[in-house]
Amino acid sequence: MSVVAEVLEARIATGARLIRWLEDADPRGRTALRELYPHTGRAQVIGVTGPPGAGKSTLVDGLIAEYRRLGRRVGVIAVDPSSPFSGGAVLGDRVRMQRHAADAGVFIRSMATRGQLGGLARSTFDATLVLDAMGYDPVLIETVGVGQDEVDIIQLAHTTVLVSVPGMGDEVQAIKAGVLEAGQIFVINKADRPGADQLHRQLEMMLHLRESGGDASAAWHPPLLATVASRDEGVPALAESIARHREHLEAGGGFARQLAERSEQIMLGELRSAVTARIIARALDDPQAAAIIEKVRERRIDPYTAVDALLARFDLVTAAQT
Amino acid sequence: MSVVAEVLEARIATGARLIRWLEDADPRGRTALRELYPHTGRAQVIGVTGPPGAGKSTLVDGLIAEYRRLGRRVGVIAVDPSSPFSGGAVLGDRVRMQRHAADAGVFIRSMATRGQLGGLARSTFDATLVLDAMGYDPVLIETVGVGQDEVDIIQLAHTTVLVSVPGMGDEVQAIKAGVLEAGQIFVINKADRPGADQLHRQLEMMLHLRESGGDASAAWHPPLLATVASRDEGVPALAESIARHREHLEAGGGFARQLAERSEQIMLGELRSAVTARIIARALDDPQAAAIIEKVRERRIDPYTAVDALLARFDLVTAAQT
Repeated sequence: MSVVAEVLEARIATGARLIRWLEDADPRGRTALRELYPHTGRAQVIGVTGPPGAGKSTLVDGLIAEYRRLGRRVGVIAVDPSSPFSGGAVLGDRVRMQRHAADAGVFIRSMATRGQLGGLARSTFDATLVLDAMGYDPVLIETVGVGQDEVDIIQLAHTTVLVSVPGMGDEVQAIKAGVLEAGQIFVINKADRPGADQLHRQLEMMLHLRESGGDASAAWHPPLLATVASRDEGVPALAESIARHREHLEAGGGFARQLAERSEQIMLGELRSAVTARIIARALDDPQAAAIIEKVRERRIDPYTAVDALLARFDLVTAAQT
Repeated sequence: MSVVAEVLEARIATGARLIRWLEDADPRGRTALRELYPHTGRAQVIGVTGPPGAGKSTLVDGLIAEYRRLGRRVGVIAVDPSSPFSGGAVLGDRVRMQRHAADAGVFIRSMATRGQLGGLARSTFDATLVLDAMGYDPVLIETVGVGQDEVDIIQLAHTTVLVSVPGMGDEVQAIKAGVLEAGQIFVINKADRPGADQLHRQLEMMLHLRESGGDASAAWHPPLLATVASRDEGVPALAESIARHREHLEAGGGFARQLAERSEQIMLGELRSAVTARIIARALDDPQAAAIIEKVRERRIDPYTAVDALLARFDLVTAAQT
């Protein structure tokens, strides 16, 4: 049986192999993905994000259990953005999710940056497509909510769940406030802890400010939920909110639009990498271009002057102007 | 007097204006930078990074006071990576640094992503050059230690100070372990808190593991320091370690090499953006290319197939192979 047929039959080992091929830019990955593509676009992709220590993994674990109870097959991509330094996924308490390891209705994949061509967002996008083609729905993406990588990854999701936690200090709250605009569902996890009421009021106020600034007609009003994920409290209500957000998106055409936009973003990112790789390969073969690069290394010219010179050398200034 | 002359005379208002021009891609910024470039490369650039809540701002504030005591003029770039959503720098407790606001020997600049062409790392690089040309030395870059942006920014620094704090839970420690390899100086801040001894042992063990894996000859052995930044405890010792790292770099040629490498990285990043912008501009003017992009939006072809088609259309596949 072909890789494509096996993925469509949801064979986990084949799905994992295909994700690896795509990470490694193995041409077999691209070929299979091309055939699988018409079978994608069905899964609701859910981003679960928030600061370190907010209990995201425990919450994802609870959501998996809830979706299994509802008879749904669940894909999970656990993203570790810190790993460019460490060379491997930092699993931390994600090990807890392992209670689902023997369940064929759950596919959990950890992703790190190292060794992935084209960046973490692209690899996460690819993995999402594979899980989607395998019939997993929803696909959960768990990630720490800080940094540009996170922004890119969050943009892959139809629905973003922002997880906060009481008593983590001002700076954490400030960062959370910064990512506020990205969330469609807000969760205060560890809601039995001191400070939960205060955090609730803060978030409510911020959501109010956000709503008053936006387009009110047909808008989604982000719910603010409380959970104690370690005791599964509030998790069914969260799953319900996620389902309601899907309905909201489908009613307004947002579900398909989201898929189209993220495909376009991924295409532009890929185009960027591919074109640059080709220009650099050409530059290294060209003595005049190589001399420009050498001058930058010796700090004899600044990098921006060098870029202008390289673009002129490859006639790209003219190309843009015609 | 020209902008360049005023920057070299360390006029703060002019320096701030030049940084803004560079952020906005105002051509006057590039012109001035080209002239200023020979006057750069003197400042030691120091990254101060760590998880939210580690007390980085307080530590930076303490370092400013220490450097002022030593008669040094200090530049500070406070980077906020979370702001693509919020549209402004999250200042949080950075306000504390304001006690230096009236001191002409201190230049503090907050940076956010929004509105900056070419990304946060490039803007931070530009600001570092301006502060360097103004004669500030050292230049401190404060940033939260999570995400790819952070990695890029950390790579701008000659010396990276990794700040940890006791009692922040396992996930935080795991992320910190992930960025371990980037640090040249390790600080346990809030070292009067419970758990400091345990964190010290953990970091010591990780540093030992890291050293045993690397090249031992002429290597820098990262010191592990304890501070209580809110009481200025341990801050002079940190400043000494930073000075020793500079000596180490200068002795081994690493100081100049670091500058050359970061110039090259910035050039490649700029080349990437510039080339892609030109290719996309061409594609939008070209009906066949526009049709390919439209197919991606309609999800009729996958983004990777589209990239191959676009590259072929612009003859870039051949260009790379010749």
